[in-house]
Amino acid sequence: MSKIPYHINLTEDEIPRQWYNLRADMKQQHGPYLHPVTMKPVVLDDLLPIFCHELCLQEVNTTDRYIDIPDEIHEFYKIFRPSPLIRAYNLEKVLDTPAKIYFKFEGNNTSGSHKLNTAAAQAYYAKEQGITSLTTETGAGQWGTALAMACSYFGLDLTVFMVKVSYEQKPYRKSIMETFGAEIIASPSSTTDIGKMMLAKDPDSTGSLGTAISEAVERAVKTPNCRYVLGSVLNQVLLHQSVIGLEAKLAMEKIDEYPDIVIGCAGGGSNLGGLISAYMGDKLTGRGNPYFIAVEPASCPSMSRGRYAYDYCDTGHITPLAPMYTLGSDFRPSPDHAGGLRYHGMSPILSKLYHDGYLDEARAVTQTSVFEAAALFAKHETILAAPESSHAIRAAIDEALKCKETGEAKTILFGLTGTGYFDLSAYTQYREGKMTDYIPSDEDLERGFASLPKIPGIQD
Amino acid sequence: MSKIPYHINLTEDEIPRQWYNLRADMKQQHGPYLHPVTMKPVVLDDLLPIFCHELCLQEVNTTDRYIDIPDEIHEFYKIFRPSPLIRAYNLEKVLDTPAKIYFKFEGNNTSGSHKLNTAAAQAYYAKEQGITSLTTETGAGQWGTALAMACSYFGLDLTVFMVKVSYEQKPYRKSIMETFGAEIIASPSSTTDIGKMMLAKDPDSTGSLGTAISEAVERAVKTPNCRYVLGSVLNQVLLHQSVIGLEAKLAMEKIDEYPDIVIGCAGGGSNLGGLISAYMGDKLTGRGNPYFIAVEPASCPSMSRGRYAYDYCDTGHITPLAPMYTLGSDFRPSPDHAGGLRYHGMSPILSKLYHDGYLDEARAVTQTSVFEAAALFAKHETILAAPESSHAIRAAIDEALKCKETGEAKTILFGLTGTGYFDLSAYTQYREGKMTDYIPSDEDLERGFASLPKIPGIQD
Repeated sequence: MSKIPYHINLTEDEIPRQWYNLRADMKQQHGPYLHPVTMKPVVLDDLLPIFCHELCLQEVNTTDRYIDIPDEIHEFYKIFRPSPLIRAYNLEKVLDTPAKIYFKFEGNNTSGSHKLNTAAAQAYYAKEQGITSLTTETGAGQWGTALAMACSYFGLDLTVFMVKVSYEQKPYRKSIMETFGAEIIASPSSTTDIGKMMLAKDPDSTGSLGTAISEAVERAVKTPNCRYVLGSVLNQVLLHQSVIGLEAKLAMEKIDEYPDIVIGCAGGGSNLGGLISAYMGDKLTGRGNPYFIAVEPASCPSMSRGRYAYDYCDTGHITPLAPMYTLGSDFRPSPDHAGGLRYHGMSPILSKLYHDGYLDEARAVTQTSVFEAAALFAKHETILAAPESSHAIRAAIDEALKCKETGEAKTILFGLTGTGYFDLSAYTQYREGKMTDYIPSDEDLERGFASLPKIPGIQD
Repeated sequence: MSKIPYHINLTEDEIPRQWYNLRADMKQQHGPYLHPVTMKPVVLDDLLPIFCHELCLQEVNTTDRYIDIPDEIHEFYKIFRPSPLIRAYNLEKVLDTPAKIYFKFEGNNTSGSHKLNTAAAQAYYAKEQGITSLTTETGAGQWGTALAMACSYFGLDLTVFMVKVSYEQKPYRKSIMETFGAEIIASPSSTTDIGKMMLAKDPDSTGSLGTAISEAVERAVKTPNCRYVLGSVLNQVLLHQSVIGLEAKLAMEKIDEYPDIVIGCAGGGSNLGGLISAYMGDKLTGRGNPYFIAVEPASCPSMSRGRYAYDYCDTGHITPLAPMYTLGSDFRPSPDHAGGLRYHGMSPILSKLYHDGYLDEARAVTQTSVFEAAALFAKHETILAAPESSHAIRAAIDEALKCKETGEAKTILFGLTGTGYFDLSAYTQYREGKMTDYIPSDEDLERGFASLPKIPGIQD
């Protein structure tokens, strides 16, 4: 067999025509979302004022294994998909490892990340329903950019609540979202009741995804013909992101490869859930058994140090409660550069899979070790990775180095979710030795856990 | 025939194995470079202290139609090539034009532009020769980034003189070059004699490519085992950039298309020369006759308003003189955002082709009209283009709109040289209505022309 190329590309015709709904193959489902006031399982009518109708149906669909991708979304996907699977030959060489390292690169679109996969879908369904405007939150800014692009494409208005620390660290992110026509508001803001409350408690708050979510939801339910959309955590998002995993598996099959290890960074879980989807399906149905690793920031270790419990998805406690690994909605993450991973909770699907042992490992890594990996990767693979994505690079390098020790030629697949063009101040900080690591103490975690809700009969 | 896909992709095996040397098909060659002191044609020995040996040979090669791409460079190309040819379906739709618009997109690599094509080649030849460090200049920063990546890959030290206005407008550009290990110096600087002289004349100088070139050359000739490399203008650069045109032509052939119009932005000419290479070969040999348009900034209209004359390539007058369209080495371009197009001269090859009528048109467009086109393009094609590249978008849109008037379904090919992630302050300025247009007066141009050298017997 001839040498495997650097880029294993699919054709446009090979972009999936259906999303894969992992839940149809899960033996057990996560518990229902709970209403934040009644603490009873939410029903469709509870969700409809917040989310688009079709997306609500997808959120609770546990039976349809495959869901057709509408033509209009598929047409949008063609602008930036299929994304390449890339063999990291140069990284292998510098690590002197017998491992074979592949990565699925989702960064070659203007949002700079995989977020466009679900942004395209959510904007489309809103448009179809006759919705005229959307709200959302963004951390690092990649989700906001993706949604701004999708709203521009489908002709919807968009308001983005951007976590204040990112808003200040990344003025260009704001500008790019505005280029696509979005309105950007730093969160916490004085434009919502919840924002005002947070500012009253802490005027210097650098914000969090949890607070930004609260503000975006509040704005959506108070605005006519407006809905809220979320870039991660939700089941619908993981569904849309399954295109990553489906494409990755198809590309790997073309070169007769099957991964021993699949690695993704995990903040809310959208990338990891999408990347592992097809291979997790194999595991659930006994057709394969890759080792799955979720990589988290040590500063915000939802799975590796969190609790599996019902919790609010937001800080303001206006969203439904989800059963998930969480640090507590009051947990205050440090202003790390991986803003996209700075979330107290985790996808309910991934949480369930981790809890049940299908998702094998959650690994927390420090910021400086992540940037060390990112700098090495840039020099040898020429791609400047986003800090979030670089968590996966860190783990992939560590696994490849283990192979060097043992002599095993394992096949490693990791997700490179995006590019770091807007994160260069962090790269500079790392290079100048000014980057610090924050690891929450057990006491810090306990303070977060103290905010976990008491739910009579379920969680006392 | 089924619908042409959005992306017309080539395989790794289809990356050219040879560069195309356009000059072998030119009936007349441009005049020789002249020594800046003696004003006699330069000989190899004059160039060797400045440039790498193999590159000097390529610079003067007018006979070999194809030149093999060394394996090591080809291997590097595989990391980021082949680049996609993209059908701009959405732009066509919003313009409501019968024209078919294609663009060759060179932005999907971390340098964000086509510059990596020649950076890879020049770094390789330096390494092969035993050179240990390189110097260069950069305007917008894309060339510097590309060369930093190539030097990092091949293990060479690099010093980049960055035009001061870009250095200040684009701190992230500095950071990304440093991430790849380069040393960055704002030009004019006090580290060279020429920089000191320029600062003495004008302490507030925002710099120019011409000055930065002088400083980089001075540093190279004064440093042991160091050479200077240039990202544009030179014949060797156009040779390396021929991969763009060769790939574009191959991809167009796959869908049975032949362009009626080929459009590229032109600063020093590297992108335009590369993009049109294969089709210009057709024109020179009677196998095809596309209409070629070079698009320049109205603020720096080297071809459309310049003179065809011998001129220095730099402001400090230490480089050889080239026969080219020029505004005079003393011409002071306004600090427009398209830093990569802010150069007083133009590739000698393109200048000759334009002078002889093979390059059909040089068109100057204003900055605001360019950003208007870029914003429209971003919204509909989802790519955030660099200001330089957006000059080509402007002309492509204008040609497509002409087709709408006439009803002609012309096939338009333009070069999208790169991305504008580091140009968002300019996008913001445009969006906020704060961008101005500078068009030099005839008197401004005369002041530049006054600096054209007098060369007895050649140019009085």
